[in-house]
Amino acid sequence: MIDKQSPIPIYYQIEEYLKKMIETGKFAINQGIPSERELSGTFKVSRMTIRQAMNDLVNEGYLYRRKGKGTFVAEPKIEQPLQGLTSFTEDMIKRGMVPLTHVLHFHEKKASLSIAKQLEVSEQELVYEIKRIRLADGIPMALETSYIPVKLVPGLTESIIQTSFYKYIEDILHLQIGEAVQALEANIVTLEDAKRLDINAGSAVLQIHRHTKLTSGETLEWVQSIYRADRYKFLINMQRSS
Amino acid sequence: MIDKQSPIPIYYQIEEYLKKMIETGKFAINQGIPSERELSGTFKVSRMTIRQAMNDLVNEGYLYRRKGKGTFVAEPKIEQPLQGLTSFTEDMIKRGMVPLTHVLHFHEKKASLSIAKQLEVSEQELVYEIKRIRLADGIPMALETSYIPVKLVPGLTESIIQTSFYKYIEDILHLQIGEAVQALEANIVTLEDAKRLDINAGSAVLQIHRHTKLTSGETLEWVQSIYRADRYKFLINMQRSS
Repeated sequence: MIDKQSPIPIYYQIEEYLKKMIETGKFAINQGIPSERELSGTFKVSRMTIRQAMNDLVNEGYLYRRKGKGTFVAEPKIEQPLQGLTSFTEDMIKRGMVPLTHVLHFHEKKASLSIAKQLEVSEQELVYEIKRIRLADGIPMALETSYIPVKLVPGLTESIIQTSFYKYIEDILHLQIGEAVQALEANIVTLEDAKRLDINAGSAVLQIHRHTKLTSGETLEWVQSIYRADRYKFLINMQRSS
Repeated sequence: MIDKQSPIPIYYQIEEYLKKMIETGKFAINQGIPSERELSGTFKVSRMTIRQAMNDLVNEGYLYRRKGKGTFVAEPKIEQPLQGLTSFTEDMIKRGMVPLTHVLHFHEKKASLSIAKQLEVSEQELVYEIKRIRLADGIPMALETSYIPVKLVPGLTESIIQTSFYKYIEDILHLQIGEAVQALEANIVTLEDAKRLDINAGSAVLQIHRHTKLTSGETLEWVQSIYRADRYKFLINMQRSS
C-alpha cells in the first residue's frame, strides 16, 4: 500500500489511502479513525509522518478532531456555485438545509470615508451597518457584515433582514438587482470570528467581499463575508476565451 | 481618530486607520511602519491591541513582516478574474509581469484509482504527472500538480510544459479546450509547500482543483493548485438568476 521507494512523500501516500477509505465509505461520517499510534504501527512509519497526513486531512476538511476524544470523519463540504447571485437563505433551502440568521448588530450610521468609497456615496451619508451569523441546520457557517445606503432601501428592519433581504428589495421595493462583483481571498480567522464560527484559532477561512449593483447602476450593498473553510468550497464554471 | 466609546472594537478602528494610511499612499509600498511600541504610545492602547490589528493586516496582505527588521507595507494583491479560462503564462503577460515556470517533477505513470476517477479514464491508464512552481517577477506565486492522459496529449515534454501547455494543445494538436470546473477552497499551507512558496508555516493558501474538458467531452487535465493568499485574490462577476 505504502511504497517507501517512491518519490511521492510517504505522508502523502498515507493521506491518499485515508481519503480512499473515506470516499469509499470504509470509514463512515462521524466515525472515529485509528489513533496516530495505531496507524504508525500499521504503516511502520513515524508518528510525525502520520501526524502530517492527519493535519492535512483535517485542514482539507476530511477529518475533524475532538479534544481528548480523537479524530473523526467529517461531513463533505458544502459545494456552493459562485455563478448566479442567490442569497444564503435561498441557497440553503435549495440544498434541503434549514437556514437561520442571527442578527448581531443592526443600526444606521454615517458612512466613514472607506465605506462611502465602497458604496460610491458621499461621506456622512446614512448607511445601515448589519452584522449577521448565518447558520445551516444549527451550525454556524458564515459571518456577514453589510453596508447599505439608507436612501436606497428605506424602512429596512431587523426582522426583514432575518427573513430575506433580496425578497424585500425585489418584491416590496420593486428594485432590480443587477450584477455583483465578488473578490475571494483566503485568510487566517481572527480570534473573535473563531469564537463566533465555533472553529479553532489559526483556522483558514474563505473571505468574500461583494459589491452588488442595481440595474440602475447604484451600489445596493457592500458585503464582507467570512465562510468556514472546513465546511465550504466554491464552484465555478469557466469557458476558454478565444 | 480612535473612539473608545464606540461598539466597534478598538483594534478594528486601528486597522481601518492603518489601511487608510496605506490606501492613500501616506505609507508607501515596502516602507516600514511604526513599531508596536510606538503605535501603542500614539493611540494610548495596549500592545496586545496593536498586535491584533497588525496580525489582521498581515493576514489580509496589507503588511508583511521581516524577522528582526520590522513590519512593512505590502504590494497590493494580484486580482485574478475567475471567468475566462486562461493560463498562468497568458495572465502574467497581460499583467505586465514576467512569468516563469520551474518544473519540479515530470513523468508518466499508471493512473491510481483516485486519479483515474478524476480523469474519467480506466485505472492503470498512462497519465503525465507534472508538478510546477509558478513565479511572477521572480516571486513564487503558486504550486500546480497536473494529471493529463497520455493518449490525449502524445509527445508532451518538459520544455513544452515550461512555455505554454495550452498553446501546444490548441496550435499543434488542434484540440479544442471546452469548459473547466473549478473548486475553490481555503487551507493552511503544508510545511513542504510553505518552503516552496517562501511563506510562513501556518499561513492561509487558496486551493483550486480544476477539471478541464475538451469540446469532445473528454477530460484533458485535473489540476490541483495552491496560491499564496497574501499575493492573490480571485474576482468573479455574477448575475442575479431569475
